[in-house]
Amino acid sequence: MTYCVGLKLNEGLVLLSDTRTNAGLDNVARFRKMFTWEEPGERAIAMVTAGNLAITQAVMNRLQEAIDTSDAEGTLLSAPTMHKVAQMVGDAMQQVQGKYHQTLEQRNENSAATIMVAGQVKGGQPRLFLVYAAGNYIEATEDTPYLQIGEHKYGKPILDRVVTQDTPLSDGIKAVLLSMDSTLRSNLSVGMPLDLTVLPAGQCQFSIRRRIEAEDSHFRALSDAWSQALRHAFSDMPD
Amino acid sequence: MTYCVGLKLNEGLVLLSDTRTNAGLDNVARFRKMFTWEEPGERAIAMVTAGNLAITQAVMNRLQEAIDTSDAEGTLLSAPTMHKVAQMVGDAMQQVQGKYHQTLEQRNENSAATIMVAGQVKGGQPRLFLVYAAGNYIEATEDTPYLQIGEHKYGKPILDRVVTQDTPLSDGIKAVLLSMDSTLRSNLSVGMPLDLTVLPAGQCQFSIRRRIEAEDSHFRALSDAWSQALRHAFSDMPD
Repeated sequence: MTYCVGLKLNEGLVLLSDTRTNAGLDNVARFRKMFTWEEPGERAIAMVTAGNLAITQAVMNRLQEAIDTSDAEGTLLSAPTMHKVAQMVGDAMQQVQGKYHQTLEQRNENSAATIMVAGQVKGGQPRLFLVYAAGNYIEATEDTPYLQIGEHKYGKPILDRVVTQDTPLSDGIKAVLLSMDSTLRSNLSVGMPLDLTVLPAGQCQFSIRRRIEAEDSHFRALSDAWSQALRHAFSDMPD
Repeated sequence: MTYCVGLKLNEGLVLLSDTRTNAGLDNVARFRKMFTWEEPGERAIAMVTAGNLAITQAVMNRLQEAIDTSDAEGTLLSAPTMHKVAQMVGDAMQQVQGKYHQTLEQRNENSAATIMVAGQVKGGQPRLFLVYAAGNYIEATEDTPYLQIGEHKYGKPILDRVVTQDTPLSDGIKAVLLSMDSTLRSNLSVGMPLDLTVLPAGQCQFSIRRRIEAEDSHFRALSDAWSQALRHAFSDMPD
Protein backbone atom coordinates (compact mmCIF):
# COMPACT_ATOMS: atom_id res chain seq x y z
CA MET A 1 0.00 0.00 0.00
CA THR A 2 0.84 3.64 0.27
CA TYR A 3 0.00 6.68 2.30
CA CYS A 4 0.01 10.15 0.80
CA VAL A 5 -1.48 13.29 2.26
CA GLY A 6 -1.91 16.79 0.86
CA LEU A 7 -2.88 20.05 2.56
CA LYS A 8 -4.31 23.15 0.94
CA LEU A 9 -3.73 25.95 3.45
CA ASN A 10 -4.09 29.68 3.06
CA GLU A 11 -0.30 29.90 3.16
CA GLY A 12 0.19 27.24 0.49
CA LEU A 13 0.32 23.55 -0.33
CA VAL A 14 2.03 20.64 1.46
CA LEU A 15 2.39 17.13 0.01
CA LEU A 16 3.90 14.07 1.70
CA SER A 17 4.23 10.51 0.40
CA ASP A 18 5.87 7.30 1.54
CA THR A 19 7.82 5.09 -0.86
CA ARG A 20 6.78 1.52 -0.07
CA THR A 21 5.07 -0.70 -2.59
CA ASN A 22 4.08 -4.29 -2.16
CA ALA A 23 2.70 -6.99 -4.42
CA GLY A 24 1.54 -9.29 -1.68
CA LEU A 25 3.36 -9.47 1.63
CA ASP A 26 6.51 -11.09 0.28
CA ASN A 27 7.32 -8.66 -2.48
CA VAL A 28 8.07 -5.32 -0.91
CA ALA A 29 9.99 -2.62 -2.73
CA ARG A 30 10.76 1.05 -2.72
CA PHE A 31 9.42 3.34 -5.46
CA ARG A 32 9.17 7.08 -5.69
CA LYS A 33 5.52 8.10 -5.71
CA MET A 34 6.05 11.85 -5.81
CA PHE A 35 6.66 13.75 -9.04
CA THR A 36 7.27 17.46 -9.49
CA TRP A 37 7.45 19.95 -12.36
CA GLU A 38 8.65 23.48 -11.86
CA GLU A 39 9.19 26.65 -13.90
CA PRO A 40 10.16 29.01 -11.10
CA GLY A 41 7.76 31.92 -10.88
CA GLU A 42 5.58 30.51 -13.66
CA ARG A 43 4.24 27.19 -12.40
CA ALA A 44 4.97 24.49 -9.85
CA ILE A 45 3.11 21.17 -9.94
CA ALA A 46 3.48 18.15 -7.66
CA MET A 47 1.72 14.79 -7.81
CA VAL A 48 1.62 11.78 -5.50
CA THR A 49 0.22 8.40 -6.48
CA ALA A 50 -1.37 5.36 -4.85
CA GLY A 51 -2.68 2.03 -6.09
CA ASN A 52 -1.55 -0.17 -8.97
CA LEU A 53 2.03 0.94 -9.63
CA ALA A 54 2.03 -0.04 -13.32
CA ILE A 55 -1.08 2.11 -13.81
CA THR A 56 0.23 5.19 -12.00
CA GLN A 57 3.67 4.94 -13.63
CA ALA A 58 2.00 4.66 -17.04
CA VAL A 59 0.01 7.83 -16.32
CA MET A 60 3.16 9.68 -15.22
CA ASN A 61 5.04 8.45 -18.30
CA ARG A 62 2.28 9.67 -20.61
CA LEU A 63 2.30 13.09 -19.00
CA GLN A 64 6.10 13.31 -19.13
CA GLU A 65 6.35 12.02 -22.70
CA ALA A 66 3.90 14.65 -23.84
CA ILE A 67 6.23 17.26 -22.38
CA ASP A 68 9.36 15.67 -23.87
CA THR A 69 8.02 15.13 -27.37
CA SER A 70 5.48 17.81 -28.13
CA ASP A 71 6.21 21.45 -28.69
CA ALA A 72 4.64 22.10 -25.30
CA GLU A 73 1.08 22.25 -26.55
CA GLY A 74 -1.45 20.56 -24.32
CA THR A 75 1.03 19.49 -21.65
CA LEU A 76 1.38 20.09 -17.94
CA LEU A 77 3.84 22.86 -18.72
CA SER A 78 1.47 24.73 -21.01
CA ALA A 79 -1.83 24.17 -19.21
CA PRO A 80 -3.31 27.61 -18.44
CA THR A 81 -4.80 26.58 -15.08
CA MET A 82 -4.43 23.93 -12.37
CA HIS A 83 -7.93 22.76 -13.23
CA LYS A 84 -6.71 22.00 -16.74
CA VAL A 85 -3.76 20.12 -15.24
CA ALA A 86 -6.12 17.96 -13.15
CA GLN A 87 -8.18 17.30 -16.27
CA MET A 88 -5.07 16.19 -18.18
CA VAL A 89 -4.17 13.78 -15.39
CA GLY A 90 -7.74 12.44 -15.41
CA ASP A 91 -7.64 12.01 -19.21
CA ALA A 92 -4.30 10.16 -19.01
CA MET A 93 -5.78 7.95 -16.26
CA GLN A 94 -8.79 7.14 -18.45
CA GLN A 95 -6.54 6.21 -21.37
CA VAL A 96 -4.33 3.95 -19.25
CA GLN A 97 -7.31 2.32 -17.53
CA GLY A 98 -8.93 1.83 -20.95
CA LYS A 99 -5.85 -0.06 -22.09
CA TYR A 100 -5.35 -2.28 -19.03
CA HIS A 101 -8.51 -2.45 -16.91
CA GLN A 102 -10.01 -5.43 -18.72
CA THR A 103 -6.88 -7.57 -18.88
CA LEU A 104 -6.17 -6.85 -15.22
CA GLU A 105 -9.71 -7.87 -14.33
CA GLN A 106 -9.35 -11.11 -16.27
CA ARG A 107 -6.43 -11.95 -14.00
CA ASN A 108 -8.31 -10.86 -10.89
CA GLU A 109 -5.87 -8.03 -10.40
CA ASN A 110 -6.73 -4.63 -9.12
CA SER A 111 -6.50 -1.62 -11.40
CA ALA A 112 -7.47 0.84 -8.66
CA ALA A 113 -5.26 3.92 -8.63
CA THR A 114 -5.52 7.50 -7.40
CA ILE A 115 -3.38 10.57 -7.98
CA MET A 116 -3.25 13.75 -5.95
CA VAL A 117 -2.41 16.85 -7.98
CA ALA A 118 -1.21 20.00 -6.25
CA GLY A 119 0.19 23.19 -7.64
CA GLN A 120 -0.13 26.76 -8.76
CA VAL A 121 0.03 28.35 -12.19
CA LYS A 122 0.92 32.05 -12.35
CA GLY A 123 -2.24 34.13 -12.25
CA GLY A 124 -4.20 31.37 -10.49
CA GLN A 125 -4.62 30.13 -6.94
CA PRO A 126 -2.84 27.18 -5.32
CA ARG A 127 -5.13 24.16 -5.82
CA LEU A 128 -5.26 20.55 -4.69
CA PHE A 129 -7.10 17.81 -6.60
CA LEU A 130 -7.65 14.08 -6.18
CA VAL A 131 -7.98 12.18 -9.47
CA TYR A 132 -9.78 8.82 -9.28
CA ALA A 133 -9.28 5.68 -11.36
CA ALA A 134 -12.30 6.65 -13.48
CA GLY A 135 -10.56 9.87 -14.47
CA ASN A 136 -12.96 12.09 -12.53
CA TYR A 137 -11.66 14.24 -9.69
CA ILE A 138 -12.50 16.32 -6.62
CA GLU A 139 -10.85 19.42 -5.21
CA ALA A 140 -9.99 20.30 -1.62
CA THR A 141 -12.08 23.21 -0.33
CA GLU A 142 -11.98 25.38 2.79
CA ASP A 143 -14.27 22.91 4.59
CA THR A 144 -11.80 20.06 4.29
CA PRO A 145 -8.33 21.45 3.70
CA TYR A 146 -6.68 18.01 3.37
CA LEU A 147 -6.89 15.06 1.00
CA GLN A 148 -5.46 11.59 1.51
CA ILE A 149 -4.87 8.55 -0.70
CA GLY A 150 -3.90 4.98 0.19
CA GLU A 151 -3.88 3.84 3.83
CA HIS A 152 -5.60 6.97 5.07
CA LYS A 153 -7.38 5.91 8.25
CA TYR A 154 -4.52 5.70 10.78
CA GLY A 155 -3.38 9.23 10.03
CA LYS A 156 -6.78 10.89 9.83
CA PRO A 157 -7.51 11.55 13.55
CA ILE A 158 -4.53 13.90 13.97
CA LEU A 159 -5.46 15.84 10.82
CA ASP A 160 -9.09 16.13 11.94
CA ARG A 161 -7.90 17.64 15.21
CA VAL A 162 -5.21 20.10 14.20
CA VAL A 163 -5.54 21.17 10.56
CA THR A 164 -7.71 24.02 9.33
CA GLN A 165 -7.13 26.28 6.34
CA ASP A 166 -5.66 28.87 8.71
CA THR A 167 -2.95 26.47 9.92
CA PRO A 168 0.48 28.01 9.13
CA LEU A 169 2.64 26.14 6.61
CA SER A 170 5.18 25.19 9.30
CA ASP A 171 2.44 23.55 11.40
CA GLY A 172 1.01 21.92 8.29
CA ILE A 173 4.38 20.26 7.68
CA LYS A 174 4.45 18.96 11.26
CA ALA A 175 0.86 17.73 10.96
CA VAL A 176 1.48 15.68 7.80
CA LEU A 177 4.69 14.24 9.27
CA LEU A 178 2.86 13.18 12.47
CA SER A 179 -0.03 11.81 10.42
CA MET A 180 2.51 9.76 8.46
CA ASP A 181 4.27 8.72 11.68
CA SER A 182 1.03 7.27 13.10
CA THR A 183 0.52 5.36 9.86
CA LEU A 184 4.10 4.04 9.75
CA ARG A 185 3.78 2.72 13.30
CA SER A 186 0.49 0.93 12.73
CA ASN A 187 0.79 -0.37 9.18
CA LEU A 188 3.67 -2.34 7.68
CA SER A 189 2.66 -1.62 4.10
CA VAL A 190 3.65 2.03 4.48
CA GLY A 191 7.38 2.67 4.81
CA MET A 192 10.26 5.11 4.89
CA PRO A 193 11.83 7.06 3.24
CA LEU A 194 9.33 9.88 2.71
CA ASP A 195 9.08 12.59 0.06
CA LEU A 196 8.00 16.04 1.22
CA THR A 197 7.12 19.00 -0.99
CA VAL A 198 6.02 22.47 0.09
CA LEU A 199 4.69 25.18 -2.22
CA PRO A 200 4.10 28.59 -0.56
CA ALA A 201 1.14 30.45 -2.05
CA GLY A 202 1.90 33.00 -4.75
CA GLN A 203 5.46 31.94 -5.46
CA CYS A 204 5.00 29.24 -8.14
CA GLN A 205 8.21 27.77 -6.78
CA PHE A 206 8.76 24.97 -4.27
CA SER A 207 10.34 26.04 -0.99
CA ILE A 208 10.98 22.43 0.04
CA ARG A 209 11.50 19.29 -2.06
CA ARG A 210 13.10 16.85 0.25
CA ARG A 211 13.58 13.11 0.73
CA ILE A 212 13.42 12.15 4.41
CA GLU A 213 15.43 8.99 5.06
CA ALA A 214 14.68 6.50 7.84
CA GLU A 215 17.69 7.74 9.80
CA ASP A 216 16.77 11.43 9.39
CA SER A 217 17.48 12.95 12.79
CA HIS A 218 14.83 15.68 12.56
CA PHE A 219 12.08 13.25 11.69
CA ARG A 220 13.13 10.86 14.46
CA ALA A 221 13.23 13.69 16.97
CA LEU A 222 9.74 14.78 15.93
CA SER A 223 8.45 11.21 16.08
CA ASP A 224 9.99 10.58 19.51
CA ALA A 225 8.79 13.91 20.88
CA TRP A 226 5.29 13.12 19.65
CA SER A 227 5.28 9.66 21.24
CA GLN A 228 6.45 11.13 24.50
CA ALA A 229 3.94 13.98 24.35
CA LEU A 230 1.13 11.52 23.67
CA ARG A 231 2.14 9.32 26.59
CA HIS A 232 2.36 12.35 28.87
CA ALA A 233 -1.01 13.62 27.65
CA PHE A 234 -2.43 10.15 28.24
CA SER A 235 -1.12 9.86 31.77
CA ASP A 236 -2.54 13.31 32.54
CA MET A 237 -6.07 12.31 31.48
CA PRO A 238 -8.73 12.36 34.21
CA ASP A 239 -9.81 8.87 35.35
CA MET B 1 -19.94 -0.30 10.42
CA THR B 2 -18.85 -0.79 13.98
CA TYR B 3 -15.86 -0.37 16.17
CA CYS B 4 -15.18 -2.70 19.09
CA VAL B 5 -11.96 -3.08 21.02
CA GLY B 6 -10.89 -5.52 23.72
CA LEU B 7 -7.87 -5.50 26.06
CA LYS B 8 -6.37 -8.44 27.89
CA LEU B 9 -4.26 -6.92 30.64
CA ASN B 10 -2.62 -8.54 33.63
CA GLU B 11 -5.23 -6.86 35.81
CA GLY B 12 -8.16 -8.08 33.73
CA LEU B 13 -10.27 -7.58 30.61
CA VAL B 14 -11.80 -4.44 29.09
CA LEU B 15 -14.35 -4.44 26.24
CA LEU B 16 -15.85 -1.42 24.50
CA SER B 17 -18.31 -1.27 21.59
CA ASP B 18 -20.28 1.38 19.77
CA THR B 19 -23.94 0.88 18.83
CA ARG B 20 -24.26 2.18 15.28
CA THR B 21 -25.33 -0.03 12.40
CA ASN B 22 -25.89 0.98 8.84
CA ALA B 23 -27.22 -0.71 5.74
CA GLY B 24 -25.91 1.81 3.27
CA LEU B 25 -25.55 5.45 4.19
CA ASP B 26 -29.25 6.21 4.39
CA ASN B 27 -30.29 3.48 6.79
CA VAL B 28 -28.57 4.11 10.09
CA ALA B 29 -29.81 2.61 13.34
CA ARG B 30 -28.78 1.83 16.88
CA PHE B 31 -28.30 -1.76 18.02
CA ARG B 32 -26.63 -3.20 21.08
CA LYS B 33 -23.54 -5.14 20.02
CA MET B 34 -22.38 -6.13 23.49
CA PHE B 35 -23.74 -9.18 25.30
CA THR B 36 -22.83 -10.42 28.76
CA TRP B 37 -23.46 -13.51 30.89
CA GLU B 38 -22.54 -13.64 34.54
CA GLU B 39 -22.70 -16.08 37.45
CA PRO B 40 -20.88 -14.00 40.04
CA GLY B 41 -17.76 -15.77 41.30
CA GLU B 42 -18.26 -18.64 38.85
CA ARG B 43 -18.04 -17.15 35.36
CA ALA B 44 -18.36 -13.88 33.53
CA ILE B 45 -18.47 -13.74 29.74
CA ALA B 46 -18.82 -10.74 27.43
CA MET B 47 -19.04 -10.62 23.64
CA VAL B 48 -19.02 -7.81 21.11
CA THR B 49 -19.98 -8.23 17.48
CA ALA B 50 -19.25 -6.63 14.11
CA GLY B 51 -20.36 -7.24 10.55
CA ASN B 52 -23.68 -8.49 9.15
CA LEU B 53 -26.17 -7.81 11.96
CA ALA B 54 -28.56 -10.62 11.01
CA ILE B 55 -25.64 -13.06 11.19
CA THR B 56 -24.31 -11.90 14.56
CA GLN B 57 -27.79 -11.68 16.09
CA ALA B 58 -28.51 -15.23 14.86
CA VAL B 59 -25.31 -16.45 16.55
CA MET B 60 -26.24 -14.69 19.81
CA ASN B 61 -29.78 -16.10 19.64
CA ARG B 62 -28.49 -19.63 19.15
CA LEU B 63 -26.18 -19.31 22.14
CA GLN B 64 -28.92 -17.81 24.32
CA GLU B 65 -31.58 -20.32 23.23
CA ALA B 66 -29.25 -23.17 24.14
CA ILE B 67 -29.07 -21.71 27.64
CA ASP B 68 -32.82 -21.10 27.88
CA THR B 69 -33.97 -24.49 26.59
CA SER B 70 -31.35 -27.08 27.47
CA ASP B 71 -30.62 -28.36 30.92
CA ALA B 72 -27.43 -26.38 30.82
CA GLU B 73 -25.40 -29.04 29.06
CA GLY B 74 -23.14 -27.73 26.35
CA THR B 75 -23.95 -24.07 26.83
CA LEU B 76 -21.96 -20.95 27.64
CA LEU B 77 -23.00 -21.36 31.28
CA SER B 78 -21.69 -24.91 31.54
CA ALA B 79 -18.54 -24.67 29.40
CA PRO B 80 -15.59 -25.71 31.57
CA THR B 81 -13.14 -23.22 30.03
CA MET B 82 -13.10 -19.95 28.04
CA HIS B 83 -11.50 -21.88 25.20
CA LYS B 84 -14.58 -24.09 25.08
CA VAL B 85 -16.76 -20.94 25.07
CA ALA B 86 -14.84 -19.56 22.06
CA GLN B 87 -15.28 -22.92 20.32
CA MET B 88 -19.05 -22.82 20.93
CA VAL B 89 -19.25 -19.34 19.45
CA GLY B 90 -17.22 -20.51 16.45
CA ASP B 91 -19.51 -23.54 16.01
CA ALA B 92 -22.63 -21.35 16.18
CA MET B 93 -21.02 -19.00 13.63
CA GLN B 94 -20.34 -21.94 11.28
CA GLN B 95 -23.95 -23.12 11.56
CA VAL B 96 -25.37 -19.67 10.86
CA GLN B 97 -22.99 -19.04 7.98
CA GLY B 98 -23.84 -22.50 6.61
CA LYS B 99 -27.51 -21.53 6.56
CA TYR B 100 -27.19 -18.04 5.03
CA HIS B 101 -23.83 -17.59 3.32
CA GLN B 102 -24.96 -18.87 -0.08
CA THR B 103 -28.26 -16.99 -0.26
CA LEU B 104 -26.51 -13.81 0.84
CA GLU B 105 -23.88 -14.29 -1.83
CA GLN B 106 -26.57 -14.79 -4.49
CA ARG B 107 -27.85 -11.34 -3.57
CA ASN B 108 -24.35 -9.85 -3.54
CA GLU B 109 -24.66 -9.21 0.16
CA ASN B 110 -21.88 -9.55 2.65
CA SER B 111 -21.99 -12.31 5.25
CA ALA B 112 -18.77 -11.16 6.93
CA ALA B 113 -19.03 -11.08 10.72
CA THR B 114 -16.67 -11.25 13.66
CA ILE B 115 -17.23 -11.73 17.38
CA MET B 116 -14.88 -10.92 20.22
CA VAL B 117 -15.25 -13.22 23.23
CA ALA B 118 -13.84 -12.18 26.60
CA GLY B 119 -14.26 -13.71 30.00
CA GLN B 120 -13.09 -15.88 32.83
CA VAL B 121 -14.37 -19.19 34.16
CA LYS B 122 -13.52 -20.07 37.77
CA GLY B 123 -10.27 -22.01 37.88
CA GLY B 124 -9.10 -20.55 34.58
CA GLN B 125 -7.43 -17.35 33.42
CA PRO B 126 -9.11 -14.29 31.86
CA ARG B 127 -8.98 -14.82 28.09
CA LEU B 128 -9.82 -12.82 25.00
CA PHE B 129 -10.69 -14.41 21.63
CA LEU B 130 -11.64 -13.16 18.18
CA VAL B 131 -13.98 -15.52 16.29
CA TYR B 132 -13.99 -15.13 12.49
CA ALA B 133 -16.82 -15.70 10.02
CA ALA B 134 -15.34 -19.12 9.19
CA GLY B 135 -15.78 -20.17 12.82
CA ASN B 136 -12.04 -20.25 13.51
CA TYR B 137 -10.54 -17.96 16.12
CA ILE B 138 -7.41 -16.36 17.52
CA GLU B 139 -6.51 -15.38 21.08
CA ALA B 140 -4.83 -12.24 22.39
CA THR B 141 -1.38 -12.96 23.81
CA GLU B 142 1.15 -10.95 25.80
CA ASP B 143 2.71 -9.69 22.56
CA THR B 144 -0.47 -7.98 21.44
CA PRO B 145 -2.72 -7.36 24.42
CA TYR B 146 -5.55 -5.86 22.36
CA LEU B 147 -7.94 -7.05 19.65
CA GLN B 148 -10.20 -4.94 17.45
CA ILE B 149 -13.11 -5.62 15.10
CA GLY B 150 -14.88 -3.35 12.61
CA GLU B 151 -13.44 0.09 11.78
CA HIS B 152 -10.16 -0.58 13.57
CA LYS B 153 -7.65 1.68 11.84
CA TYR B 154 -8.46 5.12 13.26
CA GLY B 155 -8.18 3.90 16.85
CA LYS B 156 -5.07 1.74 16.45
CA PRO B 157 -2.28 4.36 16.75
CA ILE B 158 -3.22 5.30 20.33
CA LEU B 159 -3.38 1.64 21.38
CA ASP B 160 -0.02 0.92 19.76
CA ARG B 161 1.50 3.73 21.76
CA VAL B 162 0.08 3.30 25.26
CA VAL B 163 -1.18 -0.26 25.86
CA THR B 164 0.97 -3.12 27.12
CA GLN B 165 -0.10 -6.08 29.23
CA ASP B 166 1.20 -4.22 32.30
CA THR B 167 -1.14 -1.27 31.73
CA PRO B 168 -3.40 -0.89 34.81
CA LEU B 169 -7.12 -1.50 34.28
CA SER B 170 -7.95 2.18 34.88
CA ASP B 171 -5.52 3.24 32.13
CA GLY B 172 -6.85 0.47 29.89
CA ILE B 173 -10.34 1.96 30.21
CA LYS B 174 -9.03 5.40 29.27
CA ALA B 175 -7.11 3.94 26.32
CA VAL B 176 -10.14 2.18 24.80
CA LEU B 177 -12.30 5.28 25.31
CA LEU B 178 -9.72 7.47 23.57
CA SER B 179 -9.28 4.90 20.81
CA MET B 180 -13.07 5.00 20.33
CA ASP B 181 -13.07 8.80 20.50
CA SER B 182 -10.58 9.02 17.60
CA THR B 183 -12.77 6.65 15.60
CA LEU B 184 -16.00 8.52 16.36
CA ARG B 185 -14.44 11.78 15.20
CA SER B 186 -13.12 10.41 11.94
CA ASN B 187 -15.80 7.93 10.86
CA LEU B 188 -19.53 8.53 10.66
CA SER B 189 -20.39 4.84 10.60
CA VAL B 190 -19.32 4.49 14.24
CA GLY B 191 -21.59 6.22 16.75
CA MET B 192 -22.62 6.81 20.35
CA PRO B 193 -23.79 5.51 22.74
CA LEU B 194 -21.06 3.10 23.82
CA ASP B 195 -21.14 -0.07 25.91
CA LEU B 196 -18.25 -0.61 28.30
CA THR B 197 -17.53 -3.77 30.29
CA VAL B 198 -14.66 -4.40 32.70
CA LEU B 199 -13.76 -7.75 34.24
CA PRO B 200 -10.99 -7.65 36.87
CA ALA B 201 -8.83 -10.79 36.85
CA GLY B 202 -9.74 -13.51 39.34
CA GLN B 203 -13.18 -12.21 40.29
CA CYS B 204 -15.44 -13.84 37.65
CA GLN B 205 -17.68 -10.84 38.13
CA PHE B 206 -17.92 -7.63 36.12
CA SER B 207 -16.87 -4.50 37.96
CA ILE B 208 -18.33 -2.24 35.25
CA ARG B 209 -21.15 -2.85 32.78
CA ARG B 210 -22.14 0.55 31.61
CA ARG B 211 -23.82 2.31 28.72
CA ILE B 212 -22.16 5.64 27.94
CA GLU B 213 -24.64 8.03 26.34
CA ALA B 214 -23.68 10.83 23.94
CA GLU B 215 -24.28 13.42 26.64
CA ASP B 216 -22.24 11.54 29.28
CA SER B 217 -20.28 14.26 31.07
CA HIS B 218 -17.31 12.06 31.99
CA PHE B 219 -16.83 10.86 28.45
CA ARG B 220 -17.14 14.38 27.08
CA ALA B 221 -14.66 15.68 29.63
CA LEU B 222 -12.20 12.93 28.68
CA SER B 223 -12.73 13.59 24.97
CA ASP B 224 -12.28 17.35 25.37
CA ALA B 225 -9.24 16.95 27.61
CA TRP B 226 -7.68 14.62 25.04
CA SER B 227 -8.33 17.03 22.16
CA GLN B 228 -6.81 19.84 24.14
CA ALA B 229 -3.83 17.75 25.24
CA LEU B 230 -3.21 16.70 21.63
CA ARG B 231 -3.36 20.30 20.42
CA HIS B 232 -0.99 21.38 23.19
CA ALA B 233 1.35 18.50 22.43
CA PHE B 234 1.19 19.46 18.75
CA SER B 235 1.98 23.10 19.34
CA ASP B 236 4.94 22.07 21.53
CA MET B 237 6.49 19.98 18.76
CA PRO B 238 9.87 21.12 17.46
CA ASP B 239 9.72 22.70 13.98
